[in-house]
Amino acid sequence: MQNAGTMLVAPKTRLAVGVVFIGALIYSMATGDKPPTPTPENASPRSGQQLDSPSIAERDTLSKRESGVTARSPMRLRMEAFIKENQQEIVRALEALDGSQRFQVDKWDRPNGGGGISCVLQDGKVFEKAGVNTSVVYGTLPRAAISKMRVNHKALDPDVENLEFFAAGLSLVLHPQNPMAPTVHLNYRYFETANQDGTTNAWWFGGGTDLTPSYLFDEDVIHFHRGIKEACDAHDKDYYSRFKKWCDEYFSVKHRGETRGVGGIFFDDLDETEKDQESLFAFVQTCLGAFLPSYLPIIQKRRDMPFTEKEKQWQQLRRGRYVEFNLVHDRGTAFGLNTPGARIESILMSLPLTARWQYQHEPEKGSREERLVNVLKKPVDWV
Amino acid sequence: MQNAGTMLVAPKTRLAVGVVFIGALIYSMATGDKPPTPTPENASPRSGQQLDSPSIAERDTLSKRESGVTARSPMRLRMEAFIKENQQEIVRALEALDGSQRFQVDKWDRPNGGGGISCVLQDGKVFEKAGVNTSVVYGTLPRAAISKMRVNHKALDPDVENLEFFAAGLSLVLHPQNPMAPTVHLNYRYFETANQDGTTNAWWFGGGTDLTPSYLFDEDVIHFHRGIKEACDAHDKDYYSRFKKWCDEYFSVKHRGETRGVGGIFFDDLDETEKDQESLFAFVQTCLGAFLPSYLPIIQKRRDMPFTEKEKQWQQLRRGRYVEFNLVHDRGTAFGLNTPGARIESILMSLPLTARWQYQHEPEKGSREERLVNVLKKPVDWV
Repeated sequence: MQNAGTMLVAPKTRLAVGVVFIGALIYSMATGDKPPTPTPENASPRSGQQLDSPSIAERDTLSKRESGVTARSPMRLRMEAFIKENQQEIVRALEALDGSQRFQVDKWDRPNGGGGISCVLQDGKVFEKAGVNTSVVYGTLPRAAISKMRVNHKALDPDVENLEFFAAGLSLVLHPQNPMAPTVHLNYRYFETANQDGTTNAWWFGGGTDLTPSYLFDEDVIHFHRGIKEACDAHDKDYYSRFKKWCDEYFSVKHRGETRGVGGIFFDDLDETEKDQESLFAFVQTCLGAFLPSYLPIIQKRRDMPFTEKEKQWQQLRRGRYVEFNLVHDRGTAFGLNTPGARIESILMSLPLTARWQYQHEPEKGSREERLVNVLKKPVDWV
Repeated sequence: MQNAGTMLVAPKTRLAVGVVFIGALIYSMATGDKPPTPTPENASPRSGQQLDSPSIAERDTLSKRESGVTARSPMRLRMEAFIKENQQEIVRALEALDGSQRFQVDKWDRPNGGGGISCVLQDGKVFEKAGVNTSVVYGTLPRAAISKMRVNHKALDPDVENLEFFAAGLSLVLHPQNPMAPTVHLNYRYFETANQDGTTNAWWFGGGTDLTPSYLFDEDVIHFHRGIKEACDAHDKDYYSRFKKWCDEYFSVKHRGETRGVGGIFFDDLDETEKDQESLFAFVQTCLGAFLPSYLPIIQKRRDMPFTEKEKQWQQLRRGRYVEFNLVHDRGTAFGLNTPGARIESILMSLPLTARWQYQHEPEKGSREERLVNVLKKPVDWV
């Protein structure tokens, strides 16, 4: 069922192909054992005719050892260093905020290069569950995956049996205890394929961040969107409106006719047809840098607000909807769960600690609960 | 990825096609407005060349009015009467058991014939959530659905634009409060397509029942399986072992490498290639009749057992796995949720009232929790 309008078709096609694969790759970074599509090629870093030149994983290891990571290093190493620094900074800030406990930190290496760090804080004072994850994967894309990715990235060579790839990303989901404080999600990622001589073939950035309140405080949502818009505007005046719309479309709990939350931004497949690599990296850096200032003031304001048992139950029902989106509609999660050998606990760290499903629960007319649902049924322009 | 062994291929192929469609049809019975695949043909009971003869819905309405439902009525009417009687009987028995409240009963009619009855009891004394649902659908199958169904049912005519169909089923899921008492699921359904003259074209039965404990009491599982086995054995000595295996395969939480529970039976597409219609109806009747005697003694024994807070939390974690199966892997649920206009609350009545996801929770070595997980990783022959 193709839509005739090109403006509409483009993002949908990109989503259908891009998100699944990027999602799978990002999530499968969380595996300690197997790359996303388990084929004989994946047993070794590369196979066939490429064996006489060093792999990108080998090049990167050597490069890091010899000269560290500088502004002249390959984007792979710069992105990896960038997300790991930010993971530490975010984890420190959230620990300071929660005050009750440290994050549990799990690190693992992948046999062929790369690895992951999962940081999870559970049943804290402020956060019911907070997960901050980074992962780096070196692997090979089989032919089928390459031909699907070519829809968005014509630079990919359709005539090779497999391609080396690199993927790195940071994901976080924070579920606060207080029903007045919103859940937040963020993910930024970089993907690259290598030519046989180890030079970069195709590359792209993806990511975004979005807010999911149980109770609406307009000032919070406006603050969150304003922070993202400023980050976007510093790079391209069109980005915020394009990526805000993309976010509302992607984070849709279709069977409920609701968005998951009050949105934010979402984008994928941003490559040289969009802007040069340095500009896009700078954009992603600004976005990730904008996260703490856009979320911390909100959680600080709401973390200790009084609430009733009924309001806590409403939060639990909304958590149920969050679970519905993540398990039914999120293509990255679905693909990850269907990937043999994936590190399931890292993929499902996005789920809340607790959730509730109540048959035919209807918010009271004129209530705050009803107002939230109305906003989720018809996304608002917040700034 | 076809398997070379015919014995293995057959059930898998049947599952892949059969369950999705039956699931969708059964679940979409819960809609008050739209049949499963919204096409122009669905706007009216039938379309095109069939308009000069009465629809099966019209025939059935007339037949019920003139002579009620007897052993000589079409199977459609007998199955409908049978599941509705059983729904009442089960609801009465569960109300008596719970003692705290009545089931909420929601009835709805479908514009083109048929309708549904959802009975839900929530936050009772014995049951956290209990849902017992019947639904009856008259509709038209579009060409695409017919050609997919032909894989299992060669009687279906591939050269028609659409076919009238009928589907009727009873589904129930009971989630008890006490963590020592197991969750149980049951579903029996009948499906039929009509020739243009209103006579029966293809028909089949499907269904099953399975038990999901948080704590294993071997005697309970043995009692449950023994009841089912007796029901099966009364009709065919091979049924229990065939359908027990099918159940373990279908109710698999693949990404966890676990079955959802300790099994039971599951079957689909049982048609004239299996046995004649009367024999299969008798089998389904025996199975459904065996439900209360197989479950009530268990819940009566476990409903008031003492338990700790830690055991309650383990139950909540297991509820999380139940949600994972139902939202990620159950094809009927997925298809239902993706069906525009479906009655979502009836589809998701299978979800527990509350659930929990805890990062990297591991049962203690040698604990009862660990023993359950070991059994779920390697299905046991209970009888």
